[in-house]
Amino acid sequence: MGLLRDEGLVYKAVSEVDVDPQSDHVYLKANVKAPRMAGFVVKIFVWFLEMPIFGQVLLYLLKKNNLIHKLITNAELEEPPLFVPLHPYEDLNEQQVKHIASHLSPPEQVQEAIHCLPSSLPSHKPKFHRWTILDYARAYSSGEITPLMIAERFLAAVRESSSLPLQMSFFINYDAEDILRQATESTLRYEKGQPISVLDGVPIAIKDEIDCSPYPTTGGTKWLPKLRPCTADACCVARLRQCGAILVGKTNMHELGAGTSGINPHYGVTRNPYDTNKISGGSSSGSAAVVSSGLCPVALGVDGGGSVRMPAALCGVVGLKPTFGRIPLSGVLPFNWTVGMVGILAGTVEDAFIVYAAINGPLPTPQSTTSVPKVYFPLLKSTISLSDIRLAKYEEWFNDSSNDVRICCSSAMDQLCEHYNWKTVPVTIPEIEAMRLAHYLTIGSECTTSLSSYLEKLNYAEIGWDARVALSVYGAFSSNEYIKAQKVRNRQMQIHQKIFDKADVIVVPTTGVTAYPIKDDALKTGELDYINGAALVRYSIAGNFLGLPAVTIPVGFDKAGLPIGLQFIGKPWSEPTLIHIAFAMQALRIADNRKPKVFYDLLNSE
Amino acid sequence: MGLLRDEGLVYKAVSEVDVDPQSDHVYLKANVKAPRMAGFVVKIFVWFLEMPIFGQVLLYLLKKNNLIHKLITNAELEEPPLFVPLHPYEDLNEQQVKHIASHLSPPEQVQEAIHCLPSSLPSHKPKFHRWTILDYARAYSSGEITPLMIAERFLAAVRESSSLPLQMSFFINYDAEDILRQATESTLRYEKGQPISVLDGVPIAIKDEIDCSPYPTTGGTKWLPKLRPCTADACCVARLRQCGAILVGKTNMHELGAGTSGINPHYGVTRNPYDTNKISGGSSSGSAAVVSSGLCPVALGVDGGGSVRMPAALCGVVGLKPTFGRIPLSGVLPFNWTVGMVGILAGTVEDAFIVYAAINGPLPTPQSTTSVPKVYFPLLKSTISLSDIRLAKYEEWFNDSSNDVRICCSSAMDQLCEHYNWKTVPVTIPEIEAMRLAHYLTIGSECTTSLSSYLEKLNYAEIGWDARVALSVYGAFSSNEYIKAQKVRNRQMQIHQKIFDKADVIVVPTTGVTAYPIKDDALKTGELDYINGAALVRYSIAGNFLGLPAVTIPVGFDKAGLPIGLQFIGKPWSEPTLIHIAFAMQALRIADNRKPKVFYDLLNSE
Repeated sequence: MGLLRDEGLVYKAVSEVDVDPQSDHVYLKANVKAPRMAGFVVKIFVWFLEMPIFGQVLLYLLKKNNLIHKLITNAELEEPPLFVPLHPYEDLNEQQVKHIASHLSPPEQVQEAIHCLPSSLPSHKPKFHRWTILDYARAYSSGEITPLMIAERFLAAVRESSSLPLQMSFFINYDAEDILRQATESTLRYEKGQPISVLDGVPIAIKDEIDCSPYPTTGGTKWLPKLRPCTADACCVARLRQCGAILVGKTNMHELGAGTSGINPHYGVTRNPYDTNKISGGSSSGSAAVVSSGLCPVALGVDGGGSVRMPAALCGVVGLKPTFGRIPLSGVLPFNWTVGMVGILAGTVEDAFIVYAAINGPLPTPQSTTSVPKVYFPLLKSTISLSDIRLAKYEEWFNDSSNDVRICCSSAMDQLCEHYNWKTVPVTIPEIEAMRLAHYLTIGSECTTSLSSYLEKLNYAEIGWDARVALSVYGAFSSNEYIKAQKVRNRQMQIHQKIFDKADVIVVPTTGVTAYPIKDDALKTGELDYINGAALVRYSIAGNFLGLPAVTIPVGFDKAGLPIGLQFIGKPWSEPTLIHIAFAMQALRIADNRKPKVFYDLLNSE
Repeated sequence: MGLLRDEGLVYKAVSEVDVDPQSDHVYLKANVKAPRMAGFVVKIFVWFLEMPIFGQVLLYLLKKNNLIHKLITNAELEEPPLFVPLHPYEDLNEQQVKHIASHLSPPEQVQEAIHCLPSSLPSHKPKFHRWTILDYARAYSSGEITPLMIAERFLAAVRESSSLPLQMSFFINYDAEDILRQATESTLRYEKGQPISVLDGVPIAIKDEIDCSPYPTTGGTKWLPKLRPCTADACCVARLRQCGAILVGKTNMHELGAGTSGINPHYGVTRNPYDTNKISGGSSSGSAAVVSSGLCPVALGVDGGGSVRMPAALCGVVGLKPTFGRIPLSGVLPFNWTVGMVGILAGTVEDAFIVYAAINGPLPTPQSTTSVPKVYFPLLKSTISLSDIRLAKYEEWFNDSSNDVRICCSSAMDQLCEHYNWKTVPVTIPEIEAMRLAHYLTIGSECTTSLSSYLEKLNYAEIGWDARVALSVYGAFSSNEYIKAQKVRNRQMQIHQKIFDKADVIVVPTTGVTAYPIKDDALKTGELDYINGAALVRYSIAGNFLGLPAVTIPVGFDKAGLPIGLQFIGKPWSEPTLIHIAFAMQALRIADNRKPKVFYDLLNSE
């Protein structure tokens, strides 16, 4: 294949990389060369890909056409590889941050967090408002409703949403008996006047990539639990259980987390509560949709390539992906080791914050080698104000989105700066497309490695067609390509450091497009839609590949009434500032929220 | 190739791995299946390997036959990958350790170290003794000789050693003018009574893998300096220069560090000073040989897979490989990123210690993310004693060496325990062969990646034949294999932690065989001798793959009069204990030292 060999890009020294807006760096649009495929065509494609020699050639050509050879494989860059985006902890001296003693239990952490919440919500009266954790806690404490009643309403709602005509496919597993048992215990605690925390009795759903008793962990497959039994709660789930939350089941997800549409051939496509003919996004599709539809105020997801933030944006909810290392990954399926993080999907910023307070902090074992402190922040009591926030904006990248997304996000950002007197800092962020490819190569390599011992034992017919394509592509990378990708990681880390010297956060849309239609031919085979996929994932990568914290906030709707999210990407460990900004944004836009078509008002329905 | 697919080993959980001597773990001898090749046969082999399809099949079979598929590629193990063996710094509370303030300059560090040396050497009168740094410093200070005189004698000796009949091929480059200039400056300083440190005027040679002005850095090749100019001293070299040392040139090495024999087709085979028909070992072949032959008391090398310790043992000198991260790698050719470390070759333990004092400690830049402290230790002033040292010995592994090596090393170890009343702790260290393969895969993958941009531009005829074989094999690994190897790394880290819970150091021979003959057919093509290669490298891997510090001490000679080294492998950051033990061992065996056939007595000549 020597004749086909692509010249590699020669990257200039990072010290010479210019991040100023007048930089001569040319923004490179994602050069995705692959047609949409679904149904029979996907099957043919898999057949070709899995052929011994021809498959190799095909994969070679795919990598070549998608610039992997040019930007990664054959590229020249000086940086040593950086394999894990674990930033040494640095006290950022953020304004009014409160450090929490490390011996506090999750319920005590939640209690501390409550004291940090703004005492009054902003004056904008919301048209539509999802019930929050504190709404549940107040209703339970006043006795106007009990956790058991909520559990019963929840179960009825889930049954309805699962059946014709809706078939929302929110959950992969839920166990009515287990839910009612938890609710009964919680109800008893409230009756005794002894709730464990404000999370007591609050229904929380868990992505089926995270261990949660008594359920198997499917990772969106039919076969994984046969080979990997779930024996205990993941650390983050155990912390929620300690706080008294009712764990209401395992949400649907893209098979193996290997896609962004949320179309799962085994468990059905998770439909968007705002329009049931549209996708919910993925891979944490079910977690986004259950929050959006009012079934839970909060759900957990896992974000390895935007998998929390993308569906959150498409379903009109808040999505928080903390800094790499902030939440233990113990008990989370190890589809990858260096890009994924537990994330939180919630109806409001305050709920994301409360659950972040419950689950953040290192494993309580001495083997933990990094100090990942617990940090909250006291919000100002009556108003939200943080002076001198600088928001970085890379115009070409920001604008590489659909018209509706661009206009809505720009206007939200302008409104934010104007209202709080914050500053927009124009910047250039070079080599974003190289970072996307390097991340793809990394997550793909780690995914096939983590699954390799299972895949051997498996009849491939048990795997969905689109996942088989992903696994073929993922398995085609060399060690050289993997290590080169880690060199790109180091480089982007330094480039982002330059951006963060100028600004506190980077602001971009969360996705380049809003939820797109579910086509019938995709239901059984899944679909390959790398062009829409690239548009969805366009703004997610820095959060994963560089381990940066990021949050998405709903800021409006497109002409078809589908939600649009705006994303803030922060410095390592800067969750306090990030959540502060999210609060500020939410305060301005909350009045614009709209009720989804599929919505369950659990606190008010009888 | 499905039919050829090997079953992967299913590793049991680390918690169940038994490191007790009665463990049921079966010691697996290196199962190297490759005949020795040299001359024309190597050329044919390269021709096959570099063929497009047939080469792939051949490489597949090589990996299969050498158990890579079974122990790595298809293996099942639970551990997450651990990419970099950088241990978080831990204060080991070692006895009488002195922590040095981080602002001290290298000369000040050396001065501190001198105060830590034992005030008198042990009573055993050595038969033969190489001149030490302090011998040089005393002779210069007393005026009995000057650095300039030493430089002239050094140059004469190098010229003689380079010519017929010896042709020792110690150096790749040395510049008489530059050496004399440095010596003149040093002489002036002594005349003024103002030497910078005890290293002032001391000749020190540098492996040609480390940048040192005014020389190009060849890495043992002819082509690398054309593509990568050397622009400044490496950090470790700059520190020696700051101390006043005379940098006397760049020592020969195995091409690209990709072999252990020291047979370099471009610069000649570095011959063993104890027997010029035998190899010196590698890859830091020249650095070991110049110290052995008395040309320098100390030389620097780089140890990515035993490359300092193996030639040190074969040439009868001390070799110290510090903990990963202890010495900055800035200015060292990045043939790999996760296994290599600058190492020190010296005639005595005290000289290794003094140079360690000069060059250890982090880069003085704020970007350094790990705290790598400078640590020395005050030796007891009149005698060497450390109570309660526990020496781990894995019998089967220890004994997997030639008769002479086994007997000599066992006896030295017994003598040590008896004399100091230290304890041998019998242990089992499981899965050593898997670690060797995982390390091979790692260093190979990193090496091809680091060279990939150069190799593109290169006429392969410029590369030696054995290096071409290495590059073909190195380039054949997948990202899955690389990541699996990192899982093995994590596993071995935990297994070694179990060993270190029982003992302070692990004791093994440094090499399984002593220096073997140089055959004529290898001179032009290099040779492939994986069986001898595996015997040489057998005991080196933990030092590199797990980042552990290790030191080799000469403890005797085989029947042919070739040196034998004994190795101590310590916990992370345990250099003080390790050097203490090395002193103790040296004190017992120093009387047994013998003079090499090729030896230059620079302080006493004429």
